[in-house]
Amino acid sequence: MSLVIVGTVAFDAIETPFGETDKIVGGAATFAGLAASFLYDNVKLISVVGDDFGDNMSLFKRGNIDTSGIQVIAGGKTFFWSGKYHNDMNSRDTLATDLNVLADFDPKIPASYQDCSYLLLGNLTPQVQIDTLARLQHKPKLVVLDTMNYWMNVALDDLKVVLKKVDVLTINDAEARQLSGEYSLVKAAQKIIELGPKYLIIKKGEHGALLFGEGQVFSAPALPLAEVFDPTGAGDAFAGGFIGYLARVNTVNFSNMKNAVIYGSAMASFCVERFGTERLQDLIQDEIRDRIQDFISLSKFEISE
Amino acid sequence: MSLVIVGTVAFDAIETPFGETDKIVGGAATFAGLAASFLYDNVKLISVVGDDFGDNMSLFKRGNIDTSGIQVIAGGKTFFWSGKYHNDMNSRDTLATDLNVLADFDPKIPASYQDCSYLLLGNLTPQVQIDTLARLQHKPKLVVLDTMNYWMNVALDDLKVVLKKVDVLTINDAEARQLSGEYSLVKAAQKIIELGPKYLIIKKGEHGALLFGEGQVFSAPALPLAEVFDPTGAGDAFAGGFIGYLARVNTVNFSNMKNAVIYGSAMASFCVERFGTERLQDLIQDEIRDRIQDFISLSKFEISE
Repeated sequence: MSLVIVGTVAFDAIETPFGETDKIVGGAATFAGLAASFLYDNVKLISVVGDDFGDNMSLFKRGNIDTSGIQVIAGGKTFFWSGKYHNDMNSRDTLATDLNVLADFDPKIPASYQDCSYLLLGNLTPQVQIDTLARLQHKPKLVVLDTMNYWMNVALDDLKVVLKKVDVLTINDAEARQLSGEYSLVKAAQKIIELGPKYLIIKKGEHGALLFGEGQVFSAPALPLAEVFDPTGAGDAFAGGFIGYLARVNTVNFSNMKNAVIYGSAMASFCVERFGTERLQDLIQDEIRDRIQDFISLSKFEISE
Repeated sequence: MSLVIVGTVAFDAIETPFGETDKIVGGAATFAGLAASFLYDNVKLISVVGDDFGDNMSLFKRGNIDTSGIQVIAGGKTFFWSGKYHNDMNSRDTLATDLNVLADFDPKIPASYQDCSYLLLGNLTPQVQIDTLARLQHKPKLVVLDTMNYWMNVALDDLKVVLKKVDVLTINDAEARQLSGEYSLVKAAQKIIELGPKYLIIKKGEHGALLFGEGQVFSAPALPLAEVFDPTGAGDAFAGGFIGYLARVNTVNFSNMKNAVIYGSAMASFCVERFGTERLQDLIQDEIRDRIQDFISLSKFEISE
């Protein structure tokens, strides 16, 4: 049994009020894979890079992440994204998006990946998400889809096709409003669940996350942080932590989903503490245990009457 | 022992996407007093109205609220506020603010109010808040201050004086940022607590509330609502529910403060279900009990490893 993650592996150049980076490794599959690898020990990636990616592949040794599904295109250049965050860290300008080898990405699934029980379709063109699902010989036990407003704008029909095939959708509050046409997140969730997914997670950044499904709602807090150093990858780290926890406990129900949202939130809270993948690279299990305790303290109350 | 609430008693005219009202009873002390009266049975109000308020005073019979501290000015007109909410319900335009008798409000404290142990200084000019405190013969066990951005703009020095004398401050996130000059709410809380209050509650509307104090943080969820009918008074109902719960349990510590935030959130969630005070007028205890259970279900998770 394995957890398979499909998504981008990229170079990012990031500017925040705290400083700026040269090209560093980023991408949805990178952040999600690293985050998941702290919670589950059989994580496999599907992606594409150019041969300029080089030794950066060693990044994935940390969690024994299987990279045999990452195609390396000879003479190709790795997907590059550059962005600048505003002072409030909640909005950003995209400075460059060079698709490079991502433009022709045709996901290939190694035979050794066919034991996939948990599948994360990371943020990527819906067509690649559809192709990945179609090329798996067995339907996974749980499929989680992450997407963004861009695909709602340019590939809504494809997105609706893939939405019918997944169990969980993770998007942010603005995207939930856009996809449903409803301002109220409760009404938005009802409409989105009618599009296919049994569960919906609405990510609200510094305001936490809402989980809808089985007629229930769960509200997870975000850890109040003195400083958000770099928000890049937080949503991917969330998704990776979320599905990594579920793969570990290997029982899908609302109670475990709630815990998975907390683990996802914890991984996202680490991710933003430094540039790019820096914090996820040097994280240790004790820190995760402590962070989970922080989330418990943060939200626990006892009313006895 | 009693809970004393000082604040406005007003007429409001409200327009929301759901409809509009003629002049209905509103005001910070009204909403806070009604909300508190469901949780504590000795609530006393200090305010001022004109004799046009008339029979509306019977509104406060519901919770046996003591109105002997509400001055009725012969020939005077009651404070009037009119506002229009935008479609997102998070922003509004003020259409009219007629101070009327509020312009010369000099709070008088009946002798029977001197048993005050819990004091809510509802949203009002800081000078009236200072005068009320000065006229109490004994320092209350707990003083909660509610205020808003307007007083930060026009009466910051007075506000800083009263901040030194209170135990708890409740403001929203934008106001916390304005008052502290810090974007991060964690840093904002540190700076604001240095101004005087031992505890700070940051209200985030549909995103819940944060409680800071004793070196701890608590994040309370907001109930996800399909419809917010009229947000007017939600912050006051929150403050009333908060201090009403603390008066009932009569022990001030972080654990009870957390529960009080949940009770305040519950009272606010009722308040917005209908226009003005409508929902608080017909509320029954069983509904409050059920709503508290909703908050428990909404935020509870159990991680056992």
